[in-house]
Amino acid sequence: MSSDTYEKIRARIRESLPESAKVTGIEFEGPEIAIYSSSVAFIGNDRDEVKSLVKILRKRIVVRSDPTIRLDNELTVEKIKEIIPEEAEVSKIMFNENLGEVIIEATKPGVAIGKAGSNLKLIKKQTLWIPQVIRTPPIESRTVALIRSMLQKERQLQKEIFRTIGQRIHRPAIKKDINIRMTALGSFREVGRSSILIQTDESMVLLDCGLNVGNPKDLFPHFDNGNFRIADLDAVIISHAHLDHSGLIPYLFKYGYDGPIYTSEPTLHLSTMLQLDYINICKREGRPAPYSKKDIKSAVLHTYPLAWGKVTDIAPDIKLTLHNAGHILGSSLIHLHFGNGDHNLVFTGDYKFQRTRLLEAASCKFPRLETLITESTYGGVQDIVPSRYESEKTLIQVMNSTIRKGGKVLIPVLAVGRAQEIMVVLEDFISRKMIDPVPVYVDGMISEATAVHTTHPDYLNSELREKIFHQGKNPFTSEIFTQVDGYQARDDIISGGPCIIMATSGMLQGGPSVQYLKGISDDPNSTILFCSYQVEGTLGRRVQKGYREFNAMTSSGKSTPTKIKLNVFTVEGFSGHSNRSQIISFIRKVKPRPERVITLHGEASKCMGLASVIHKRLKSETRSPVNNETLVLK
Amino acid sequence: MSSDTYEKIRARIRESLPESAKVTGIEFEGPEIAIYSSSVAFIGNDRDEVKSLVKILRKRIVVRSDPTIRLDNELTVEKIKEIIPEEAEVSKIMFNENLGEVIIEATKPGVAIGKAGSNLKLIKKQTLWIPQVIRTPPIESRTVALIRSMLQKERQLQKEIFRTIGQRIHRPAIKKDINIRMTALGSFREVGRSSILIQTDESMVLLDCGLNVGNPKDLFPHFDNGNFRIADLDAVIISHAHLDHSGLIPYLFKYGYDGPIYTSEPTLHLSTMLQLDYINICKREGRPAPYSKKDIKSAVLHTYPLAWGKVTDIAPDIKLTLHNAGHILGSSLIHLHFGNGDHNLVFTGDYKFQRTRLLEAASCKFPRLETLITESTYGGVQDIVPSRYESEKTLIQVMNSTIRKGGKVLIPVLAVGRAQEIMVVLEDFISRKMIDPVPVYVDGMISEATAVHTTHPDYLNSELREKIFHQGKNPFTSEIFTQVDGYQARDDIISGGPCIIMATSGMLQGGPSVQYLKGISDDPNSTILFCSYQVEGTLGRRVQKGYREFNAMTSSGKSTPTKIKLNVFTVEGFSGHSNRSQIISFIRKVKPRPERVITLHGEASKCMGLASVIHKRLKSETRSPVNNETLVLK
Repeated sequence: MSSDTYEKIRARIRESLPESAKVTGIEFEGPEIAIYSSSVAFIGNDRDEVKSLVKILRKRIVVRSDPTIRLDNELTVEKIKEIIPEEAEVSKIMFNENLGEVIIEATKPGVAIGKAGSNLKLIKKQTLWIPQVIRTPPIESRTVALIRSMLQKERQLQKEIFRTIGQRIHRPAIKKDINIRMTALGSFREVGRSSILIQTDESMVLLDCGLNVGNPKDLFPHFDNGNFRIADLDAVIISHAHLDHSGLIPYLFKYGYDGPIYTSEPTLHLSTMLQLDYINICKREGRPAPYSKKDIKSAVLHTYPLAWGKVTDIAPDIKLTLHNAGHILGSSLIHLHFGNGDHNLVFTGDYKFQRTRLLEAASCKFPRLETLITESTYGGVQDIVPSRYESEKTLIQVMNSTIRKGGKVLIPVLAVGRAQEIMVVLEDFISRKMIDPVPVYVDGMISEATAVHTTHPDYLNSELREKIFHQGKNPFTSEIFTQVDGYQARDDIISGGPCIIMATSGMLQGGPSVQYLKGISDDPNSTILFCSYQVEGTLGRRVQKGYREFNAMTSSGKSTPTKIKLNVFTVEGFSGHSNRSQIISFIRKVKPRPERVITLHGEASKCMGLASVIHKRLKSETRSPVNNETLVLK
Repeated sequence: MSSDTYEKIRARIRESLPESAKVTGIEFEGPEIAIYSSSVAFIGNDRDEVKSLVKILRKRIVVRSDPTIRLDNELTVEKIKEIIPEEAEVSKIMFNENLGEVIIEATKPGVAIGKAGSNLKLIKKQTLWIPQVIRTPPIESRTVALIRSMLQKERQLQKEIFRTIGQRIHRPAIKKDINIRMTALGSFREVGRSSILIQTDESMVLLDCGLNVGNPKDLFPHFDNGNFRIADLDAVIISHAHLDHSGLIPYLFKYGYDGPIYTSEPTLHLSTMLQLDYINICKREGRPAPYSKKDIKSAVLHTYPLAWGKVTDIAPDIKLTLHNAGHILGSSLIHLHFGNGDHNLVFTGDYKFQRTRLLEAASCKFPRLETLITESTYGGVQDIVPSRYESEKTLIQVMNSTIRKGGKVLIPVLAVGRAQEIMVVLEDFISRKMIDPVPVYVDGMISEATAVHTTHPDYLNSELREKIFHQGKNPFTSEIFTQVDGYQARDDIISGGPCIIMATSGMLQGGPSVQYLKGISDDPNSTILFCSYQVEGTLGRRVQKGYREFNAMTSSGKSTPTKIKLNVFTVEGFSGHSNRSQIISFIRKVKPRPERVITLHGEASKCMGLASVIHKRLKSETRSPVNNETLVLK
């Protein structure tokens, strides 16, 4: 944005506000414009003057207290402790200096807030900080703590970053016509490296930035495509935290990206956790990691977390809204609104159009919609997934029959998503004695991912939330689960009695799950149980397809062929993906009906098959492009 | 190419040839490798050693005399005059120093060549130049003379240019897989600015480089598309000379292109003529021209003329062959062969799948073919074009009825193509007294374009060639035609008696045709006759559609609304484009049958309609992309 336009907007705001507002500064903060005020009366209230400014400027405006009038942090903590009664069990008080907010973590948030918010009003008045009360998470996440402390430390740097981003977002639009192009960079007619480039004549955004889990040779999306120019990117939007959707965000920063990442807050936390883990895996396997911790830090500092349903300007001609996708914690459908309603696009990412034990079903109502881009992971004709009831029955049978033969059940799971779903299921069945009581070992990053889940209760489904917070029956903290640490503990489990083992990685691409497989592979009484999608090219897929031998690495680093004698089962009903009929049902029910449906994120035959059935049944234009193709959407 | 590989090829050649070959140099000359020799016995003969080299290296090799052993130019001229008898009527002797060739222009080429080539053998032996005899054109073209003299003068520069180009062509290929993408830069679902980008992982070529005749606001193809990077272009291939296919070649050189243009020699001559004219038109109309004469000169120097049927390496993984397209003089179908036969593509440019008075019908047999890109100008369901016989009958009727009422017939024509076709028709009918004998005025660049036609008799159809050269009945030199020069002459014609006027521009976009229209527009006895495609947005199209008023510029530069009272006729049977049934017939007959057909170069409804009918009838995959879309061909 030219400083000229910037000055014009500032002047306009100053003119519109009364003297009494005591405006001390006007700043761009990412998509928002912040008005700093030293008037106690003006701060944090929805004033009519501000509302009419929002209407005129068509920009999001927030009012914050001028930092100089806020009470000193230590004194503020004292005040809060004075005002909030002890029985609220305040566990932590954190400051967000950029937002002028003080975050109060309490075990009993209702008590902390006080009758009709009386405590909060008092805190605001006496400290000039805006208080936010959140519930103390039942398990503390190291990742969340790490991210929060880093953001606190780098708050000045982040403020600068968002000022620059804000100026770019609010630059004036030059072109009048909206022409929209979509370039398939990754995950078209394949599973992995999700990445879609959206371009208008004004701007350019990237949807997802994933890596290829199953095929390290084609690790990257087609970033060599001529339409992709890192320096021209306005925004990167991430659907959810799995590495095939978020794994290459830090790579962008390594190569000079300096713009915003928009995603839900749980996705920020989970993807950071997975990226840090990914670097470690690369190191352990002697592969060069595509980025470093420094780049992950850059990514975190450039992330602007968005709540579902909040409409946000991300470029002069694009507005973004995230909606629940029901796939994993924080997973979002991405809705883009172009120009003055010229076109609207939804990219589903991975989604589940059915309520699960963990999450609500994906949203299917949008203000407008012309182009829908849908995943096709289970979009094939053969992908008739058994019902949830059937799947749970099978799970119980497999578990009990294995346990009763003295065997072990190994469940390779992605740390995020299926792991928590299965934990809730197992806790339920074991507590109801439908599965014989054996220890459930949880290995790898699952516990940490679970901790992140409890940090974001608002993103879980209502039943689970209710269970955790109001009935005090948190399945994740149940004593049936034992966290495993280190090689020795694993050997003890392997040589021990019947048990259930949940371990990463979810597709047997290294990690503890492979160590367990090696340990129990010659036990015909044990079972390996797949509950999540196995990408082509992974060991998980090979075992699932019936390969009965694999190369295990010995402790001395030698590779020895190992026979697989244990039982192999796949239970698909727990998938976080919509099955074929759920996809079709989603497209039938989505409001308004899209004119065009584009399929991606599935094996070639599934993407094309799904496109064909959608065309036949719904008469929409359907496309199933391959990577590197560019479609003109409008 | 690394100098290493270059040296390897040279060493290989040196090793394979005997001492006696007296090799003095080995040079890359564009796609060819030239071996210079000072052995009289070795030069210009198809030696087995050379043939086996061609097989091993899979590159085109020519043997030339070392310049130092060639006879001095003046002495060579004397020798030639001694050897060739006077009755051969040698009109010109030109040297191509780069090729070591002496070109002998003679009215009677047979006499010049001598019995079984005896004269040529003698010339070669005594001068060590390789003689080429061509027929003296019946009308001399200023453009051809200009181009030839320029190339003669700049021969050293051109040699350097082709050395660099040659090294680039013969660089080693790095990638093994062939992935081919096509990006629609211009003329997709529209007529004008023909331009297609073809990319592999190794290389990048541009098919056509045209400007938008009907819409100066969108003059350029989408050169801003991210896939188009001028510095990475390996080659530009031009289908034919019309400005909507060739008009922006010099623009590429203005912005740094330094590679080859491949096209037929007539296309080089005609497009240069049209580009020079285009600059003048821009100047006259007070618009900035998109390039200068200097850029046109660069384009000529970088052009490597190709004969039809000659297979040529243009990149490490692409071979090019041109074939007759039957649209205008030199117009070519472009055949690309990728890798080791991994994929084959034909781009038709504009084509006529029917023999005309001027040209043979387009070729339809190729060694291999997977993707066919076809024009759709007359691809609409309504485009049922009357037969040639019907059209000629209509033409005669319109002419005679106008002439007999004392009116004038104005035919706006493109200088190149339709003009010559109509001249042959008129000469035929007037000489056979089927049209009343009136003067036929030929205005604008038509005569010069006609002269270029007579320079390239090999590109005309056999009947016309026979007529011109063996029967001595050249329709183009008939006395019925009068060349018009200047404003005053036009005014005299306008105020004179019945006549036929052929004038450029062909779509009434400025030029003499508009001056004539202005002059006779209020004469209800006169007629305007359209025989060629009128692009949407041109005055020609508006008049054709029935507009009865236009803004004429007065001599003082004022624009005045002018009523159109003359008769308006369109005769479409003379079109140089295939009509709908000819396109379908071409696609039926083309050998081998393509797997995929892509339509372009037509109004949106015609491109889509044609794609649909081809899909229904031939079951091929069909696509009708819009500009800026990228398809993956393989």
